[in-house]
Amino acid sequence: MKVLVIGANGRVGSLLIEKLASQHQVIAGSRHSKAINNSYNVEHSYINLLNDVNSITESMNGVDAVYFVSGSRGKNLLQIDLHGAIKTMQAAERVGAKRYILLSSVFALQPEHWKESFLSDLTDYNIAKHYADLYLSTQTQLDYTILQPGALKEEQGTGKIETNVISPGSNSIANVVDTLVAILADDSTIGRVILMHDGDTPISEAIRPAE
Amino acid sequence: MKVLVIGANGRVGSLLIEKLASQHQVIAGSRHSKAINNSYNVEHSYINLLNDVNSITESMNGVDAVYFVSGSRGKNLLQIDLHGAIKTMQAAERVGAKRYILLSSVFALQPEHWKESFLSDLTDYNIAKHYADLYLSTQTQLDYTILQPGALKEEQGTGKIETNVISPGSNSIANVVDTLVAILADDSTIGRVILMHDGDTPISEAIRPAE
Repeated sequence: MKVLVIGANGRVGSLLIEKLASQHQVIAGSRHSKAINNSYNVEHSYINLLNDVNSITESMNGVDAVYFVSGSRGKNLLQIDLHGAIKTMQAAERVGAKRYILLSSVFALQPEHWKESFLSDLTDYNIAKHYADLYLSTQTQLDYTILQPGALKEEQGTGKIETNVISPGSNSIANVVDTLVAILADDSTIGRVILMHDGDTPISEAIRPAE
Repeated sequence: MKVLVIGANGRVGSLLIEKLASQHQVIAGSRHSKAINNSYNVEHSYINLLNDVNSITESMNGVDAVYFVSGSRGKNLLQIDLHGAIKTMQAAERVGAKRYILLSSVFALQPEHWKESFLSDLTDYNIAKHYADLYLSTQTQLDYTILQPGALKEEQGTGKIETNVISPGSNSIANVVDTLVAILADDSTIGRVILMHDGDTPISEAIRPAE
């Protein structure tokens, strides 16, 4: 499968590309090519989220699946995290890249939780993610999955998470990446919003729909 | 009719309240009451767009129609112009205030125009208005009208506008206000997005649907 990762230079994106490359042909999409490891199965594609949909569409030809794991870290929420993300959804629809996996944030679709824990400092971020998630799930025909972890930590992966999330929790970046990889391999995740934090359930089991 | 104006202290809101008060019972909604003219037919209601939907809903009881003419002037686009606006739509639905008139910005729903004229400096603003307009028109059951003027000028009203807009143009605030008033009186405007700038057609004629 030809898989595009948008946000290739980020902490999540760079590890995701490394993991995906063992099974897929990976396109590393970013504004910069310097940090991209042009290794076996990985090539770079220029994608600037500030450009218009036509331009972004050109970078997506032949792609089967898209990961959006980019973010402005609060510096350009409207143009990158919100509108930038949505332009890539529109581009994915235009090129027929049906599968779209969006990295979001815990409770982004549930504003009633936005005062809890570390989320209380992230209202602007939550709003940007909220409307990106909402657009993907209501305004597109894409086979989407939205993954909503809490805070990301540079810790060892455990391969075990929890998806029955009742409060925000922390997430090893490796666990988030392994969950993103597992989502692409499991079509039961299509059309679903999956909340997560580190936990005790093996990833492949944790992402299955509740009985 | 009991009409709530959200953004009562703004340049548009204060004039709108004055004009509406000759025909309707007007609720002037804002965070501040000091500048509100508690004249005949006008009373103040505390509305803080940073509060949650439950709290905003409480300020809307008994309201038949809502105008949203508030804006942060670029200072808090995510929380006021985007999410604040949408919370008032949700509150309007909860109290059964079916009629909802949103003051937006020219071409807010057409990103392909966002590089034109003065719009090129307003990308963040356009994004916030875009997703507020999109939410109102796709995610609610409200009887909405979205009015999209270009730049607002403190000039005398002429009572004449143009709604077949092919490029951004300037708008007398009085003309915008008179158009907002005329929209409430004309149910043919329900479910429509009306672009405008100052022009040569009497307002009541200009807002009718094209043949």
